[in-house]
Amino acid sequence: MADHCQGEPPGFTGADLENMVNEAALLAARGGGDKVTMEHLEEAKDKVMMGAERRSMIITEKEKEITAYHEAGHALVAILLPDTDPIHKVTIIPRGRALGLTQQLPVEEKHTHSKKYLINRICILLGGRSAESLVFDDITTGAGNDIEQATTLARKMVCEWGMSGMGPLTFGKKEEQIFLGREIAQHRDYSEGTAIKIDKEVKELVESANNTAQKLLADNVQVLHDMALALLEKETHRAGRYREHY
Amino acid sequence: MADHCQGEPPGFTGADLENMVNEAALLAARGGGDKVTMEHLEEAKDKVMMGAERRSMIITEKEKEITAYHEAGHALVAILLPDTDPIHKVTIIPRGRALGLTQQLPVEEKHTHSKKYLINRICILLGGRSAESLVFDDITTGAGNDIEQATTLARKMVCEWGMSGMGPLTFGKKEEQIFLGREIAQHRDYSEGTAIKIDKEVKELVESANNTAQKLLADNVQVLHDMALALLEKETHRAGRYREHY
Amino acid sequence: MADHCQGEPPGFTGADLENMVNEAALLAARGGGDKVTMEHLEEAKDKVMMGAERRSMIITEKEKEITAYHEAGHALVAILLPDTDPIHKVTIIPRGRALGLTQQLPVEEKHTHSKKYLINRICILLGGRSAESLVFDDITTGAGNDIEQATTLARKMVCEWGMSGMGPLTFGKKEEQIFLGREIAQHRDYSEGTAIKIDKEVKELVESANNTAQKLLADNVQVLHDMALALLEKETHRAGRYREHY
Amino acid sequence: MADHCQGEPPGFTGADLENMVNEAALLAARGGGDKVTMEHLEEAKDKVMMGAERRSMIITEKEKEITAYHEAGHALVAILLPDTDPIHKVTIIPRGRALGLTQQLPVEEKHTHSKKYLINRICILLGGRSAESLVFDDITTGAGNDIEQATTLARKMVCEWGMSGMGPLTFGKKEEQIFLGREIAQHRDYSEGTAIKIDKEVKELVESANNTAQKLLADNVQVLHDMALALLEKETHRAGRYREHY
Amino acid sequence: MADHCQGEPPGFTGADLENMVNEAALLAARGGGDKVTMEHLEEAKDKVMMGAERRSMIITEKEKEITAYHEAGHALVAILLPDTDPIHKVTIIPRGRALGLTQQLPVEEKHTHSKKYLINRICILLGGRSAESLVFDDITTGAGNDIEQATTLARKMVCEWGMSGMGPLTFGKKEEQIFLGREIAQHRDYSEGTAIKIDKEVKELVESANNTAQKLLADNVQVLHDMALALLEKETHRAGRYREHY
Amino acid sequence: MADHCQGEPPGFTGADLENMVNEAALLAARGGGDKVTMEHLEEAKDKVMMGAERRSMIITEKEKEITAYHEAGHALVAILLPDTDPIHKVTIIPRGRALGLTQQLPVEEKHTHSKKYLINRICILLGGRSAESLVFDDITTGAGNDIEQATTLARKMVCEWGMSGMGPLTFGKKEEQIFLGREIAQHRDYSEGTAIKIDKEVKELVESANNTAQKLLADNVQVLHDMALALLEKETHRAGRYREHY
Repeated sequence: MADHCQGEPPGFTGADLENMVNEAALLAARGGGDKVTMEHLEEAKDKVMMGAERRSMIITEKEKEITAYHEAGHALVAILLPDTDPIHKVTIIPRGRALGLTQQLPVEEKHTHSKKYLINRICILLGGRSAESLVFDDITTGAGNDIEQATTLARKMVCEWGMSGMGPLTFGKKEEQIFLGREIAQHRDYSEGTAIKIDKEVKELVESANNTAQKLLADNVQVLHDMALALLEKETHRAGRYREHY
Repeated sequence: MADHCQGEPPGFTGADLENMVNEAALLAARGGGDKVTMEHLEEAKDKVMMGAERRSMIITEKEKEITAYHEAGHALVAILLPDTDPIHKVTIIPRGRALGLTQQLPVEEKHTHSKKYLINRICILLGGRSAESLVFDDITTGAGNDIEQATTLARKMVCEWGMSGMGPLTFGKKEEQIFLGREIAQHRDYSEGTAIKIDKEVKELVESANNTAQKLLADNVQVLHDMALALLEKETHRAGRYREHY
Repeated sequence: MADHCQGEPPGFTGADLENMVNEAALLAARGGGDKVTMEHLEEAKDKVMMGAERRSMIITEKEKEITAYHEAGHALVAILLPDTDPIHKVTIIPRGRALGLTQQLPVEEKHTHSKKYLINRICILLGGRSAESLVFDDITTGAGNDIEQATTLARKMVCEWGMSGMGPLTFGKKEEQIFLGREIAQHRDYSEGTAIKIDKEVKELVESANNTAQKLLADNVQVLHDMALALLEKETHRAGRYREHY
Repeated sequence: MADHCQGEPPGFTGADLENMVNEAALLAARGGGDKVTMEHLEEAKDKVMMGAERRSMIITEKEKEITAYHEAGHALVAILLPDTDPIHKVTIIPRGRALGLTQQLPVEEKHTHSKKYLINRICILLGGRSAESLVFDDITTGAGNDIEQATTLARKMVCEWGMSGMGPLTFGKKEEQIFLGREIAQHRDYSEGTAIKIDKEVKELVESANNTAQKLLADNVQVLHDMALALLEKETHRAGRYREHY
Repeated sequence: MADHCQGEPPGFTGADLENMVNEAALLAARGGGDKVTMEHLEEAKDKVMMGAERRSMIITEKEKEITAYHEAGHALVAILLPDTDPIHKVTIIPRGRALGLTQQLPVEEKHTHSKKYLINRICILLGGRSAESLVFDDITTGAGNDIEQATTLARKMVCEWGMSGMGPLTFGKKEEQIFLGREIAQHRDYSEGTAIKIDKEVKELVESANNTAQKLLADNVQVLHDMALALLEKETHRAGRYREHY
Repeated sequence: MADHCQGEPPGFTGADLENMVNEAALLAARGGGDKVTMEHLEEAKDKVMMGAERRSMIITEKEKEITAYHEAGHALVAILLPDTDPIHKVTIIPRGRALGLTQQLPVEEKHTHSKKYLINRICILLGGRSAESLVFDDITTGAGNDIEQATTLARKMVCEWGMSGMGPLTFGKKEEQIFLGREIAQHRDYSEGTAIKIDKEVKELVESANNTAQKLLADNVQVLHDMALALLEKETHRAGRYREHY
């Protein structure tokens, strides 16, 4: 099932890097240019991480409209919240399995994240679905990936990073399975009573963030319409910040 | 155990595609024609996906009647609900393990589905069993596949797509088992308290859809009789829409 | 532990079919005849599916009597209930691991089964044990296979075929383990609360059928005595219907 | 840890049979006799099934006394209960891992067992421990094997043979693991609520049998003393019935 | 983590025996003697079972003092309780992973153990920790091995030997995993309700024994001081009984 | 995700030792010196255990400040609590995956740890996060490793070392999986009721330690500021004690 997508996919291996450079060189050659520009690298990175653009993909007007509001929802929540990473690109051109994409780019590299930053991130993830719900009074399967990411993040805040009413403890023992060469199972080492409390904390984190996203969009619904219409017209919006840098 | 079947089986691999084209060519050759028509491809697709037609299969009059009402039930619910995909074909000629078949064909390709569409889909899946119950005051094992699909869909709405009172969270962590080359287990990462709530939401989605299907059929029982009788006479009904297209 | 047996074992593979034909040919040759009759095939089928007859097996008079009442119990319940498959053969000659056997033969091949048919089937399965209890005021381990089949059937009615107060849902996800080439595990994907309700529905289905079987036999205990005595005298009873067909 | 033992170990393979015959031949040859007698076969069977006699094993007087009362307890309960298999041999000569042994020999081969027979069997199994408790006001680890057998039997009565208040249902699905060539796991397919009821039924069966054994021994304590003293003197008691047969 | 140790490690394989004899011969040769004495064998046994003595290991005065009181605690409880095995050796010379060691030697070989003996054994195991707590008002990780052994013993009394309020039943089915050549898992075959009762019985056995040990030591604290001081001076105490025998 | 780190990583293999000596020799050679000093060995040990120093790593001023307060928090709690190991080094130079590091060095080698020492250790582990929270009113993912260590330690105190209200018992059976060559699973052998009590004891140990750390830092906040500022200036603080020794 195709998804709308928010944010960056995690990680980037050495092989990905090699692929990206080769793709960029190819793009430069095709364009007749003799040097690889930042634009070539950018396009190559998206292709390696998300799959190729699929401009020929047949999408109904209805789905295109939903996608535009979904991506605008992500972007608008990110803009309205304080201390979030700036929007880098918003697009409704399908790429890989995604119908649209909103990318943020941090001003500086970060090695740790604060509780406030993570809560904002969950708000932004739920912004796409909130926009769909606000405008169409219906929700779609396209937000499945967003709510999975939001749930995973909230669960880590509670179980790994001590950022909830559960206090400064971790819950769940990682169990490395050596014969597979990597960790695949997270062992439950706590009681059902604790599991109920964890579920409650996770639910509260996500629902509180959902309320924030819904209120922000409802209070700024005209901006949401404007952004969605602009996307339907221009298909991709790039932040000025990007071109200023290069 | 043989089943009545509703809707398309999921997926279609490259090998399936090759088989389909070869089957179609064979059908064209057998028919003495020199070109493959859309009818040939249609028949070939059904054979590859569902198994060969089994016109010689011995079926009692009673089972044939039950099957006719079962398929008519699927089709009638689909027709009566708004915004559903048009009926493409309804048949009581056995094929593979199925005694009958109702096919819908979307007007346009979709990449995401709305909550309203999915609820209607569950109603249609339960329409076959509802018709059996309404007309014969008994139900059969033939609806086992329908209720499995309906349950799976309702469970995904609650656990993967955030479309219930459980809110915009996902429940259950997919656990890819690498050595088998594909995902086989869905790890339960929530409490028993949450599991009880999930079961309640799933049950409510399915039972509400069942009530809808039952009411629609009871309110239109004469149409149901007409459709079932027509099927018992003609065995297959094809939608006019199909021929209009080609 | 040896069992009394009710009904047909499930399935019949290609290799079984080959064995059956060879056995029948052997039986015909041993009998000096030059053609394989239906009797030869019948005997060959029982041998392939249930094991060889064991006429030399030493069985006490007491066990023979219990077995006769047990098989008569199955048969009498089947006869007294409406719409059941006719009795084909009842025997107390041991075969394979079974001390006795009651076979029903459907009038026509069926591809689906109704809820009413399945409830009757459970009554018949429990008829053997009910007869033991009624006549000897004791029960034996010999009914272990019958109650296992009855429980499995009732559980499928509740969990796979939507034939109980649990509604039109399925419970338990079948998990195919590819490396073993077949399905071996049924994954529990529901809450303990739901599990308790499932157990209650299964218990009610089986106990209600048990009550039906006990009442039918108590109301017809003289017929039960007659049938058991006839079996102790003649050891095997074949239905007239069979010979009429061939 | 060494155990007192009650009853026959289960099963007897082809290889066991071969070993037994060879052992018997050896015993005959050693004895200078030219033919294998029933006594030789009897001794050979015990050696194959239980291990060699260990007359040289150092056992304290205290342990010998406890063992004598333990075996006398098994035997006396068996004698006092109606319809049990006759006592074949009682011994306090250590064999294999056992400090003593009580053997019963059924008058006739049985293929099924009644509920009444099985309840008596549990009483006999608990007779050893009851005698220890009655005479020494202490119990030992030596009864561990007896109570394991009693528990297993009671659990089968409840879960496999429908012989308790749980009714004519089976509980727990046997799960054959093909790659190991035999069944090793019994899958729990019922709710915790049902598990609690099963535990209650099993406990009641065993404790009721324990009360029976304790009362029988207390009411016949003088016979118990006589039997234990006789065993301490003669070490082995063989039933007259045996010699009468051969 | 280093442990104080109480009692004998379980088991002694054929390979261990061979190693022991070779070690003893070596010790005799090193000592210039021409025959292996009982002292050589004793020292060799300890080395094989517990590891080599580590007289050069650097231990703080504080840890040496704690160890002395810990071992004295084991020994004193053993001396004060009736019907326990006599103390054979108490030492605070580190050996293998242990900082100290208390050994008892049974007067006669035993094949079974009574409930009273096992309760005393748990008291002795907890005597080390009780002494630490009494004298230093603190406890250390060094008692981890003692409480593990005490818990295991109490659990076996409840679950395998029927020596608690749970009655003469066993709990937990041993599941032999053939492909590993030995039993590794103990399958839980009882309800959560039963599990709670088992935990309660185990806890009561251990805590009651702990109270006994604490009271015995508090009532004889001066003897405890004397024994600990003697150990700090002489490092090893051997029972007179040993030398009397040889 | 990068972490702040407290304390030593556990263990040091023979291969680690070899690597350390080679690294130290290399450092000496690079420095033009002809002998390996204690400083070379110290630097080599840190590199082998924690990874290379990463002075060129780009870290924002904000993260550097948070790290300085985090490490100062660890160090200050360690200094303020009685009977803790002296601080050896505090640094905010990134090394491996850690942004900073606080090392303590025990005055003497220890083989066991007291309950009081372990509680202090948990306080110190939580000191970093407490400082972040006190100064910035926010917490970061960087403390994830600290709270995991604190939780593990508290759980061992309750389940392995008998240092809580659960009494002198162990909970959870270690299950060695032979085919993997090492223990990987800890089997839960207790009831849910016991699991709830264990969770409560673990939570109380950690939260009580957290309160201690928070109070100590709040009462000495000016010292905390001074230490953090000193770290931001000098990046590494080494205890005088170290140089005094060599």
